[in-house]
Order: sequence, then C-alpha cells, then structure tokens
Amino acid sequence: MMGMLSNRLASSFLSSYKLCSKAESTLRAGDILQLRRTFTIEDVVEYSRVSSDTNPLHLDTDCAQNAGFEDRLVHGMLVASLFPRIISSHFPGAVYVSQNLQFRQPVYVGDEVVAEVQAMNIRAFKKNHLVTFSTRCLKKDNVLALDGEATAILPSLIKQ
Amino acid sequence: MMGMLSNRLASSFLSSYKLCSKAESTLRAGDILQLRRTFTIEDVVEYSRVSSDTNPLHLDTDCAQNAGFEDRLVHGMLVASLFPRIISSHFPGAVYVSQNLQFRQPVYVGDEVVAEVQAMNIRAFKKNHLVTFSTRCLKKDNVLALDGEATAILPSLIKQ
Repeated sequence: MMGMLSNRLASSFLSSYKLCSKAESTLRAGDILQLRRTFTIEDVVEYSRVSSDTNPLHLDTDCAQNAGFEDRLVHGMLVASLFPRIISSHFPGAVYVSQNLQFRQPVYVGDEVVAEVQAMNIRAFKKNHLVTFSTRCLKKDNVLALDGEATAILPSLIKQ
Repeated sequence: MMGMLSNRLASSFLSSYKLCSKAESTLRAGDILQLRRTFTIEDVVEYSRVSSDTNPLHLDTDCAQNAGFEDRLVHGMLVASLFPRIISSHFPGAVYVSQNLQFRQPVYVGDEVVAEVQAMNIRAFKKNHLVTFSTRCLKKDNVLALDGEATAILPSLIKQ
C-alpha cells in the first residue's frame, strides 16, 4: 500500500516535470550545456529539510554576517546539484560516476548563477558512453563560484 | 515584507531543528563522526523538486530496472549531502572548501547507509581551522557506496 502510494507520488511528480523535447543533436567533445538559476530562501529551507543540514550560515542572516558573509549562503552541495541536473535533463538515465568540487566564492540566497558543463572526453563504455565534463558555476560578472570535473555514464549521446 | 516572511520561515525552521548539546570535546586527527540514514521515496521526490533533477532513474522503478538497477536510485548528491551535514551539525558555521566524490555502488530508495567523515589533517587558517576529512558512505554489509575527501573551514574545533 505504502509502495503504491510512493510510486504514485513519484510518477505524478515525474510526469508534471517532463521536459519539452527540443531538436535532437549528438554530444561532441567541447559542447557546453548551461542552466541559469537563482536559489531562493524557500529553496534553501527545503534543501535544509531534505538534507537535514541546518548549518546556521544557510538560514540565519545575523550568523552569516557575523561570520563575514554578505548574506545567507546557499548550501554548496545544492549549487553543485545543478551539474547532474543539467546532465540528466539532456541525457535521461545518466549515472553519475564522480564529481570533484572546489567551492571558490560564496553563492548567496537570491544570487543568480549560471552553471555549465562542458564535455571534455567521450569514450565507449560497454553499451554506453563514459563522458568527462568540466563543470563550473559563475555568479554575476562571471565570478567563478564553483568548479570541478564530473564523470557520468550516458545511455545515449543524443541530447534531449 | 517578503524578506521578513522569508526570515521568519528560516528562523522557525532553524529553531525547530536545533540539536541537543552533547558533551563537548575537541576534534583531533583520526576522529570519526558518523550518521546513519535511510532515504525514502518522499526524500527523493523532495530532493528532485528542490534540485529540479528529475532523472527517471530516481523516480521510476521500471526505468531503473530496465537500466539494470534493483530499484530507484537515491540521487548521488543527496547521499553526498550527508558529509557536510555531519560536519556542520558538529561544527556549526563550518564552510565547505572542497569535496571529491567517487560513486562506487548505487544507493537505492530504502537502503540504510552509514556516512562517516574522518579528520585527516587539521591546521590553523587565519583565526579558524582548515580540516581535511576522509569521507565515505557504506551500505549493508559494509559495502562501499561512495567515498572521497572534503576540506572545510571550522570556526572552532570544539565538537557540539
């Protein structure tokens, strides 16, 4: 019963979020995929709840400012979630193998960021494709907030 | 007005989650901090919503099984969120500097995992402490699901 409910919950959520198909093209080394997003305090509170990470730097303005920040910080791992989100939205069924992350500048609640992943190396892996991506996230004025590298197994190189 | 509402939302959430103080002790190299958690489908749906990562492997049992998995996968970055959560719960105000992640085995919805961070190197950094942690996450029978290394700046080495 619980399983049925859970499946319905997941399915209804999934169908409500299905992305529109765009013109198909094949991923090549050098290709860049981007996503622009602004994390709100509601996002940060929701992420705090699901991760149970209630570090006051994310939720308490005074605490963040006393620690020398301008405002509350978006959790670094929430910012980093943009990378697998970009990859899986274009390549549904992608499986993450690795991710390195260097947090270079704080991302504050309300900051607009542009996350981008660039395919660096693509090779055959069994019946799939093992792709290494350079990953980075930029704030206003192209300030680098976060960078690193990700590796994922893609079932297909056709971009959705 | 929106700011006030947002602050209230964050504060009320923060106070409801305040951790009980335990006996204080000082972090030393070699110390291990652990957390046990089982991610439910509700967690995965909530994380999908806040991250906008709706990869069907996380939400659709048939899709996950057709791709060769036993069940729906917990997002790797949600599993990885356990590491900063452990660190910040013991050291509120901790700031993440880096995290490397190797996803070695799938974590399925309903799997109990034990995440652990071990302090490897501790050095002074301005008025704070720069600590390198070995990070790993184990499934049943001590199967390694995820490992890597994290670096964080801690305002204090006193464990909460």
